Amino acid sequence: MLTPLAPPMNRTFASPIVASRKWLEGVTFPPDRPLINVSQAAPMEAPPLALREEIARIALEDPSAHLYGPVLGMPELRAQLAKDWSAAYHADISPEQVAITSGCNQAFSSVMSTIAASGDEVILVTPWYFNHKMWCDMNGVHAVPLKTEDDLLPDLEEAARLISPRTRAIVLITPNNPGGVEYPPELLTKFYALARDRGLMLVLDETYRDFDSRTEVPHYLFRQPDWQNTLIHLYSFSKAFRLTGHRVGAMIASPERLEQVEKYLDTVAICPNQIGQRAALWGLQNLSEWVAGERTEILVRRQAIIDGFPVLAQKGWRLLGCGAFFAYVSHPFDMPSSQLAPWLVREAGVLLLPGTDFMPKGDKRAEQQLRIAFANIDQAGITELFTRLAKIAP
Amino acid sequence: MLTPLAPPMNRTFASPIVASRKWLEGVTFPPDRPLINVSQAAPMEAPPLALREEIARIALEDPSAHLYGPVLGMPELRAQLAKDWSAAYHADISPEQVAITSGCNQAFSSVMSTIAASGDEVILVTPWYFNHKMWCDMNGVHAVPLKTEDDLLPDLEEAARLISPRTRAIVLITPNNPGGVEYPPELLTKFYALARDRGLMLVLDETYRDFDSRTEVPHYLFRQPDWQNTLIHLYSFSKAFRLTGHRVGAMIASPERLEQVEKYLDTVAICPNQIGQRAALWGLQNLSEWVAGERTEILVRRQAIIDGFPVLAQKGWRLLGCGAFFAYVSHPFDMPSSQLAPWLVREAGVLLLPGTDFMPKGDKRAEQQLRIAFANIDQAGITELFTRLAKIAP
Repeated sequence: MLTPLAPPMNRTFASPIVASRKWLEGVTFPPDRPLINVSQAAPMEAPPLALREEIARIALEDPSAHLYGPVLGMPELRAQLAKDWSAAYHADISPEQVAITSGCNQAFSSVMSTIAASGDEVILVTPWYFNHKMWCDMNGVHAVPLKTEDDLLPDLEEAARLISPRTRAIVLITPNNPGGVEYPPELLTKFYALARDRGLMLVLDETYRDFDSRTEVPHYLFRQPDWQNTLIHLYSFSKAFRLTGHRVGAMIASPERLEQVEKYLDTVAICPNQIGQRAALWGLQNLSEWVAGERTEILVRRQAIIDGFPVLAQKGWRLLGCGAFFAYVSHPFDMPSSQLAPWLVREAGVLLLPGTDFMPKGDKRAEQQLRIAFANIDQAGITELFTRLAKIAP
Repeated sequence: MLTPLAPPMNRTFASPIVASRKWLEGVTFPPDRPLINVSQAAPMEAPPLALREEIARIALEDPSAHLYGPVLGMPELRAQLAKDWSAAYHADISPEQVAITSGCNQAFSSVMSTIAASGDEVILVTPWYFNHKMWCDMNGVHAVPLKTEDDLLPDLEEAARLISPRTRAIVLITPNNPGGVEYPPELLTKFYALARDRGLMLVLDETYRDFDSRTEVPHYLFRQPDWQNTLIHLYSFSKAFRLTGHRVGAMIASPERLEQVEKYLDTVAICPNQIGQRAALWGLQNLSEWVAGERTEILVRRQAIIDGFPVLAQKGWRLLGCGAFFAYVSHPFDMPSSQLAPWLVREAGVLLLPGTDFMPKGDKRAEQQLRIAFANIDQAGITELFTRLAKIAP
């Protein structure tokens, strides 16, 4: 037994991504039926050549790209994001309200550390993003599940009922991971008002904002008076520019909040890596058309999921949510999803995550649910995936 | 007032590096007396050209360098470090005992999160490294100061007296930051035995190992039976290869410990950035001669500090420790170091950190102490620094 072992870390479950990789051990995938990996929301191809060339140029020509930078990130990147987001949300966001982090998970971890500590409560919508739950566990923070019905949208009145004197924040993800649903702006306004009126922070993770199927402004929260006293926005450069390996994310919050975040980032990271930040800046300045093309392709795949789903629906599958990089589904097998997922690796050559990774222990619905991270497979891949799943349906 | 604000974060002090930058605001430095910045242990020049060319090549040719990698780091880098460290410490370290992190601060944060939680105690030698203290504060862990006398070496019996039922670890840094002292191997063996016998972890931060003035093996702890039950080694690639902006560090611990660390890293970082890891690997494989030259230059500067110090000693300064990237000194001014340091920016054009950044509140000696991070200035710069300081001495 490992000693000493901090009890909160001991109580935290292992990363579902890491755990799922172990299911592949010892399994061979014949050439005519290669593994379909829909377990992780990760681009599988390199960034566009122009961006790689820019990174190479920076590495050679910019000495500062190899040395420490400011804890809260590169000023030019903070300014560019403030400018672009101000335009996108019809709002007035300043560079001092932006911090750059080593990925969006770190944006979440760092800002939550300023909000909640051991014994506090944070409301997470279920199905939740497992790393949010893991952060709570390892910090002794109680993750209070806000259940959703089959539309996967959180209910305002239920949220209000869950608030206790120890509640510090409500966390929403839109477009949602794992659920894929895009939250209507009116719902977000209502949750914002609830958080504001009850003295809570509303933490809004918009990692997948670049792939929203809607063309209108996704919400008006940045136009609320004194929004920075309530709202925290999280973002990732990983998906839009295929920079997952560079670890660059961002958050928008009040400068006073960021002063607290800075303590955390200094201690845990010192600064975000410099080449990744420069790549993100170049991306914002030069790749908007390219990202629009990426979005179109993701929306094509999303439509392929929806259009192809009847072949699974006939066998008893249900599509609960579809958007961003994800389809969240209910399966017809008489087997809990935690057993079904590794079984699908062996029987269908498909790697995906079970609903149990996204739900509190004891929520029985999780055993009937699966997440399909479809962004990595094209239309033909989606057809192949559905064919394989339909073939082995009970 | 910021609400909600987690009390542990509120209690944590601001980063001394960030705070010291504010002293520069509004101060002009004439061309004949530019700022001498000896506040941070950071190389000021880019990595060697060959390494920058390799990074550029990787960015262009290796798609995996832009995408997610394993949470605990790149297998080739873990293996290379295990091999090199096994040779350096005359020991048998396996790749499964190595994890790569986003810098050494993250190695510390992640492993400490597996060891200690709110209410626990950790023994830190004073003067301490402020980010270690900050980690303790923001996690509700009590940092128990282990005082040193003027030789800056920790006393074993004093350490033994400080151990309580809540103690989880002893943290040592050698060569020391901020003290500059190199801990004798026998002292480390004794601390190891104390930690082992009392069921504590010994966390040994060897960030500056590449600049140790001694040529023999720095310690024999990796040769102790079952060392991995007690010892945790921390390292940084930032200093040896001038990769501070890439954020790559490492730790050596038991695979069981690393399984817990993996939960933390997955939640806070997902993976270390990929280009930095490849740069570190290339450095280990190709830059040992270059690093030897860097070490020689640092030792020349160290000697210049020692040889030049009499000009300050005459004015009542004392050199307490000198090694790694640091000289730790006592000053003769009738002014607390926390006021002296910003005053030196304006009066002498010198930026350094006061002892109060490295000591618990209430330890009066801190007010007489300063840290000089001399690695960034050459022999001529050291002469100029001492001339300026001697001129304004009381």
